[in-house]
Amino acid sequence: MTKAATPLVKRLAVIGLGLIGGSLARVLRERGAVGEVVGIGRGEANLKRGVELGVIDRYCLDPTEGVRGADVVFVATPVCSIPTVVERIAPHLEDGCIVTDGGSVKEFVVNACEPLMRPGTFFVGGHPIAGTEHSGVEASFATLYQGKRCIVTPTEKTDPAALAKVVKIWAYAGSAVPVMDPATHDRMLAAISHLPHMVAYSLVNAVDGYDRFGGELLAFSAGGFRDFTRIASSDPVMWRDIALTNQEAILETMDFFSDYLGKLRTLVAAADGPGLEAFFRNSKEKRDAIL
Amino acid sequence: MTKAATPLVKRLAVIGLGLIGGSLARVLRERGAVGEVVGIGRGEANLKRGVELGVIDRYCLDPTEGVRGADVVFVATPVCSIPTVVERIAPHLEDGCIVTDGGSVKEFVVNACEPLMRPGTFFVGGHPIAGTEHSGVEASFATLYQGKRCIVTPTEKTDPAALAKVVKIWAYAGSAVPVMDPATHDRMLAAISHLPHMVAYSLVNAVDGYDRFGGELLAFSAGGFRDFTRIASSDPVMWRDIALTNQEAILETMDFFSDYLGKLRTLVAAADGPGLEAFFRNSKEKRDAIL
Repeated sequence: MTKAATPLVKRLAVIGLGLIGGSLARVLRERGAVGEVVGIGRGEANLKRGVELGVIDRYCLDPTEGVRGADVVFVATPVCSIPTVVERIAPHLEDGCIVTDGGSVKEFVVNACEPLMRPGTFFVGGHPIAGTEHSGVEASFATLYQGKRCIVTPTEKTDPAALAKVVKIWAYAGSAVPVMDPATHDRMLAAISHLPHMVAYSLVNAVDGYDRFGGELLAFSAGGFRDFTRIASSDPVMWRDIALTNQEAILETMDFFSDYLGKLRTLVAAADGPGLEAFFRNSKEKRDAIL
Repeated sequence: MTKAATPLVKRLAVIGLGLIGGSLARVLRERGAVGEVVGIGRGEANLKRGVELGVIDRYCLDPTEGVRGADVVFVATPVCSIPTVVERIAPHLEDGCIVTDGGSVKEFVVNACEPLMRPGTFFVGGHPIAGTEHSGVEASFATLYQGKRCIVTPTEKTDPAALAKVVKIWAYAGSAVPVMDPATHDRMLAAISHLPHMVAYSLVNAVDGYDRFGGELLAFSAGGFRDFTRIASSDPVMWRDIALTNQEAILETMDFFSDYLGKLRTLVAAADGPGLEAFFRNSKEKRDAIL
């Protein structure tokens, strides 16, 4: 490991020290890209564990105090709470400080946070597309972002140097860093992530509710069903926040999906063999192409 | 391996020597549960390969000739062709012969095949719930059915001794063997297998058709989407046949699912935080319970 002469980040404050925040701290420390890491959160036991594990140097329960002297603040709390956190810390940031986040929805976060920043401090939205089914600092690891994508979502108002620094941080973490506007991010993620979650949650609830077999149905379900519905085991609070903050795009993709499901229903009802085969074949070809 | 003194099956004819048929032949041979295996099919190269691999003893291109002297015939062809195959072989079966199948839809198969059997020969429907993404005799292996389920679907007319023998064959193959009537099987599988496939195929087609991003969407899709849509890479012809032959139950479960998706849409549109969380939490709890 080569330590950089001057680290990329002098003092990093991580608000919400879980899988996402902890893993970024770990990789930047490992790469010598950060001078000091301060953990900020409400759970003191978790923060103490972060110090023991060497993920952070010290911790602070009060965010307004914790961000003091930080040149980069990473807000890794649930989506809905990000603007609240940023509003609270904004008056306490050093000149030149860059605040970035890890929320799964970007238009909501960026629209709310940008106006909160006082002149000479900067907000840049980000979304690392990585995770595991585990949570907490204990679950964090330095290679979480390796080979993944972190989408960074500037607006017309974003400071170019602040943007460049956030892109560099995620590149140091091992991620490809596509840059796009918040609205494009939200519509893209609605289609490839939010919609599939809505579908999976609905599917499990529907099969659970399809009570013709004395409640035995899910117990009987085969491996394929379990694999297919794995994402329906995701955190309900996180997904509530996503559904609340990316409402429009999610409704649009749900309606789009319903149209396709309706087309397939028509083919099944008509016993249209060639139509069914073509529908399935198009899906298979498109799916196989992304393997 | 202990060879049974008298094998469970004296001469097994397998019509359609692929993953499903080949794997049953392999495990019964390995366990000494079969005297001779005859492979029957249209692809001579595949059948020759079956002999080379030791999956079958010999092969026959003509099913009416191939079933001669067999005490058990396993029809492992696509669902829609099973009745055609059974109609063709029925006049040529030895007295006491049991015909069983491996089709994914049972009411269609059993209703069509039962009346084709002449007195003293027996049809028993079966559905081994096992498979891989590979096909052909080359892909077959003796442990495919180990720890899986094979549902056997007798009717009021089914001969009890023939039923017992088919159950025993699948138990020898290593499977649990639930017994239920064909209609129950079809409704159960519609919910836990056919519906998820309809949903996955529709989802991939919808995302593919959601063309706001210059065709980049699927290429951009994350690991979660790929895992979730794996079953949308299944064989289009097999699924066409399933959709054609289990039409009623599939339509019923699709409508049931659409109702749940509609409920979720209402929650999203109303920005109903507690309702969304409860919907997701119920799904997660039910899903976690079957892990």
